[in-house]
Amino acid sequence: MPQLGLRPRKAWAALLSQILWSPYTACTRAVSSHSQVAEAVLTSQLNPNQEKSDFIIKTPKGTRDLSPQQMVVREKILGMVVSCFKRHGAKGLDTPAFELKELLTEKYGEDSVLIYDLKDQGGELLSLRYDLTVPFARYLAMNKVKKMKRYHIGKVWRRESPTIAQGRYREFYQCDFDIAGQFDPMIPDAECLKIMCEILSGLQLGDFLIKVNDRRILDGMFAVCGVPESKFRAICSSLDKLDKMSWKDVRHEMVTKKSLAPEVADRIGDYVQRHGGVSLVEQLFQDSRLSQNKQVLEGLRDLKLLFEYLTLFGIAEKISFDLSLARGLDYYTGVIYEAVFLQTPNQAGEESLSMGSVAAGGRYDGLVGMFDPKGHRVPCVGLSIGVERIFSIVEQRMKVFGEKVRTTETQVFVATPQKNFLQERLKLIAELWDAGIKAELLYKNNPKLLTQLHYCENMGIPLVVIIGEQEMKEGIIKLRSVASKEEVTIKREHLVAEIQKRLSDS
Amino acid sequence: MPQLGLRPRKAWAALLSQILWSPYTACTRAVSSHSQVAEAVLTSQLNPNQEKSDFIIKTPKGTRDLSPQQMVVREKILGMVVSCFKRHGAKGLDTPAFELKELLTEKYGEDSVLIYDLKDQGGELLSLRYDLTVPFARYLAMNKVKKMKRYHIGKVWRRESPTIAQGRYREFYQCDFDIAGQFDPMIPDAECLKIMCEILSGLQLGDFLIKVNDRRILDGMFAVCGVPESKFRAICSSLDKLDKMSWKDVRHEMVTKKSLAPEVADRIGDYVQRHGGVSLVEQLFQDSRLSQNKQVLEGLRDLKLLFEYLTLFGIAEKISFDLSLARGLDYYTGVIYEAVFLQTPNQAGEESLSMGSVAAGGRYDGLVGMFDPKGHRVPCVGLSIGVERIFSIVEQRMKVFGEKVRTTETQVFVATPQKNFLQERLKLIAELWDAGIKAELLYKNNPKLLTQLHYCENMGIPLVVIIGEQEMKEGIIKLRSVASKEEVTIKREHLVAEIQKRLSDS
Repeated sequence: MPQLGLRPRKAWAALLSQILWSPYTACTRAVSSHSQVAEAVLTSQLNPNQEKSDFIIKTPKGTRDLSPQQMVVREKILGMVVSCFKRHGAKGLDTPAFELKELLTEKYGEDSVLIYDLKDQGGELLSLRYDLTVPFARYLAMNKVKKMKRYHIGKVWRRESPTIAQGRYREFYQCDFDIAGQFDPMIPDAECLKIMCEILSGLQLGDFLIKVNDRRILDGMFAVCGVPESKFRAICSSLDKLDKMSWKDVRHEMVTKKSLAPEVADRIGDYVQRHGGVSLVEQLFQDSRLSQNKQVLEGLRDLKLLFEYLTLFGIAEKISFDLSLARGLDYYTGVIYEAVFLQTPNQAGEESLSMGSVAAGGRYDGLVGMFDPKGHRVPCVGLSIGVERIFSIVEQRMKVFGEKVRTTETQVFVATPQKNFLQERLKLIAELWDAGIKAELLYKNNPKLLTQLHYCENMGIPLVVIIGEQEMKEGIIKLRSVASKEEVTIKREHLVAEIQKRLSDS
Repeated sequence: MPQLGLRPRKAWAALLSQILWSPYTACTRAVSSHSQVAEAVLTSQLNPNQEKSDFIIKTPKGTRDLSPQQMVVREKILGMVVSCFKRHGAKGLDTPAFELKELLTEKYGEDSVLIYDLKDQGGELLSLRYDLTVPFARYLAMNKVKKMKRYHIGKVWRRESPTIAQGRYREFYQCDFDIAGQFDPMIPDAECLKIMCEILSGLQLGDFLIKVNDRRILDGMFAVCGVPESKFRAICSSLDKLDKMSWKDVRHEMVTKKSLAPEVADRIGDYVQRHGGVSLVEQLFQDSRLSQNKQVLEGLRDLKLLFEYLTLFGIAEKISFDLSLARGLDYYTGVIYEAVFLQTPNQAGEESLSMGSVAAGGRYDGLVGMFDPKGHRVPCVGLSIGVERIFSIVEQRMKVFGEKVRTTETQVFVATPQKNFLQERLKLIAELWDAGIKAELLYKNNPKLLTQLHYCENMGIPLVVIIGEQEMKEGIIKLRSVASKEEVTIKREHLVAEIQKRLSDS
C-alpha cells in the first residue's frame, strides 16, 4: 500500500487552503481571543436579586461550543461532504433529535448503555438518537418506503467517557449516506466505498486505507474455528481491538477474559492476521475448512464481486480485505468497512495524534424489517463520515501552521473621517445591503477614521467606502482597497455598480 | 399601511418558484408516495427472535421527520436567511443541544415548565436548550467576549401542547442574529429591524408589519396606571393576548382573573389600544402622566431615535409602535419587536391559516451579566426568525398550487439498451463522478432502457448518456436530452467536456 511520506509544511498549508477555500487569511482579532477557551470555569452569581449560588459556567461534559473560526472549518468540510452525497443522487432527510426510547433498544449491543434518556416529565419515554441509521430505518418502515437514497447530516449523542484530545465527544455530527432497496448484489455497496474514497481524497489530509470484511465471513470463521455461538459477540469485540493491540495481547484476552480454548484462539489468529486484496478472497475459497461453511462462501462470493466493481471504479488499491475488521453495531448483516488515515510518523511539528477510523459503514438488511409490522425487509447499505475526527485533524494542523481564516464575509465597510456623519453612513449602507452587498459599519456616532480602517484590516474586509463633507458637496465618494491602500474617487450614483464590478472581478 | 390584495394563483406560483429557485418542476414519484405520512402508526414485532411486543412506530409527540421535498424547501429558506445574516457581517456559532440545567432556570418566566430535562444517569443535570439566546449569553460570559455579531441556526425544544396545524412543534429550528457590545444607542437595534425587513420581503409571502414597543415604556405605563409591581408580569401576559382577543375580553381577564382594579384596567386600556408611527411617540411625550415617569421617557427617547434610523434605512412604514406588544421572555430590558404577515382574507384556495408572529426579538442588556462572576454586563440586541411557521405557510401554498420540487440534483443518467453492460456503465459513471458531475445509474445488472428513461423523467434528470455495443465499437456515445428527446452522437473521449459545456450553458 502506498505510504504518505513526510509532507513539508508549505505543501500542507497549500492543501489546507484548498480545503478552506480561504481567499483571505487575515488576523481575526475578535475570534482568536476566545476561541481556545473550551471549558472556562467561572463561579457566578446567577441572579443579582436572588441569593448567591456558586455555579460553574461551562458546557456539559464531553460537549463544546464551536467558535466562529471552527464554524468556518466545519462548514467547508460539511459542504464538501454534502456535495459528494448530492453528486451520487442522494436526497436530504431530517429526523427528530429524540426517538421513542423503545425504538432504540436492542440495536446497539453493549453500547446501549451510552444512550441519553430524557427525563420522564409525563407522556412518552424518549431517548436522544445514538446514530442516524436507526432513525432512517424507522422512517422507511413508518412510511412504507421500499427504495431510497438519502443523506443526513445531524448531531447524535453518546454518553461516552470523552477523550476530547482524540476528537471524541458526547455530542457530535454524523454525515450519513445510505441506499435502501432490493438491487442486484454489491452495486450499491461498491458505490458507498467509492463515495468514501472521493471524500477522503478530497480532504487531502494524507493517504488512507479502507478495510473491508463481511459479517457472514466473520461468523462462519468463528463457527469453523470452534467458537461457541454464545461467545461470537464477545470474541468479536476482542477482535475489534486488533488495531490498537498486538495479536498476542488480543489472544491473551480471548483465552483469559473470554475463556476461549487456546487452540480455538490460535485457529482464529491464523485467519485474522491476514489481509490483502482480491487474492486473499481467492485464497480463502481454497481453504479446506472455510470453504465448507455456507455463510463464508456467500460472503466470499460477494466480496469477489465487490472487488470487481471497485476495480472498475478505479479504487481497488485503496481497499484491503481484512479479516480482523469486526465493527461494534448489532445490525450489520453483510459487508462492513472502516477507513483510516495512514500514520505519517514524525510529521513535522505535529503531535502524534491517534488516527482512529474516519469513516465506516456496512450492510444492514434486517433493521427495517424489525420496525415493520409484517417484518417486510428493506435491504440497506450505507456509510458514515467521522467528521468530528476530521475537524480535529484539520484544527490541529491549522494550529501547528498558524493558519487563520476569515470568520465573516463582509465585502465593503462604510467609513467616514468626519463627525456627525452617522445619517449619511446609514443611508449609504442600506443602499449597499439592498443591492445584496455584504457591508458593515461601526455602531458609533463618531468613530475615528483610523479605528474604522483598523477594523477592516483585522476583519479582512477588502473594500472601504469613505464619505465626508467634501464628497457630499461634490456628489462623489471614495473607494479604497484595504490591501493596496489605493483610493479612487467615483460618482456617488455609480457606487453600487462599481463595487459589484470589483467584487465580480476578484 | 399597505394591505396586500388578493394575489392571483399564477402570480403566487411565480413567486414561489423564485423562493425555490426550482429550475425543473418534475413529478417526483418516489417522494410524493411517502412525504405525506407524518405519523403512520404501525404495530410492530420489534425483534423476530424476541417475544412479540406491541409497539407503535411513530415520531415523538410534537415532532416530525422532514421528507426530501420538505428538506428542499427548508434548505432554500435557511439559505436565504443565512445569506442575509452574512450580508450584515455576522459570524457563525454553534453550541451544544443541551446545557447545564441550572443555567436555564430563571430565564423564561412561566414557560420554564416547557423545558425538556435529561434523565439523571449520573453526572451533571442537563436540559435541552429552550432557545439560542441563553446559550449565546453563556458563551459570551464564559469566554469573556465583550463584542460579537453572530448568527446561529439550530434546533430548540419546548414541551408545548403542539398544535401542528399552526406550525407549532416541540422541536423546531431557530434562526438567530444578535449583536453584543456597548455601542451608541439604537444603531444595532435599527439594524436588527432592517434584517427582519430584508428577510420577510425576500420571502415574498405577502405584506408584513413589525410591531415595536419597549419594556421600559411598558413597565412605566403599568406603574403610572397603578398596577402593583407584583402584578406586572401577570398583566403583561394578559396584554400579550390582544392579538387574539378583543380589549373587552382582555380587560375582563385582568379584572376577574388577575384581580386588577377596574379603573386601573381602564387606564391601561386607554394606552394599549394605541399604535402608530413616530407621531405616537411624540404624543406620549406630551402625556401628562407618562411624561412623569423616568423609564417611560428613556424608552420614548430611544424609540424616537430608532424611528429616525428606520427612516434612513427606508423601512419606517413597515414598523408600528404598538403599546400592546409585551413579549413573554423575562430577559428583555429595552426595545422589543415582533413581525406578522398581514392577513390576506379569502386568499384563493387557501385555508384560513393563523398567521402568528414570524420573527421577533429585542434588547436584553442584563442576561450576560447574570452569567458573569463579577456581574459585568454585555448589552445585547437580537432577533429570531420563525422559520417553522414560514415553512408551514410555504408548504401549504405549495400544496394548494400543486407545486413540486426536485429532491435530487442529478445532472446525468448513465443508461444502456443492452444486456451485460454493467461493467461499461460503472467505468463510465466513475469517470463522470471524478469530473464532479452529478450522475446516477440503476443498480441492476440488466435494466430495461424504458425503465431507465422513465427514471430520468420521474426524477427530473436532464441528460442521459447511452452506451451500447455499437457505440463501444465505434468509440462513440449518445447524449440525450430528456426534455426534448433529442440525441446527439459524440466521441467517447469528448463526453465529459461536452456534458460540462451543456451544464454550464443551461
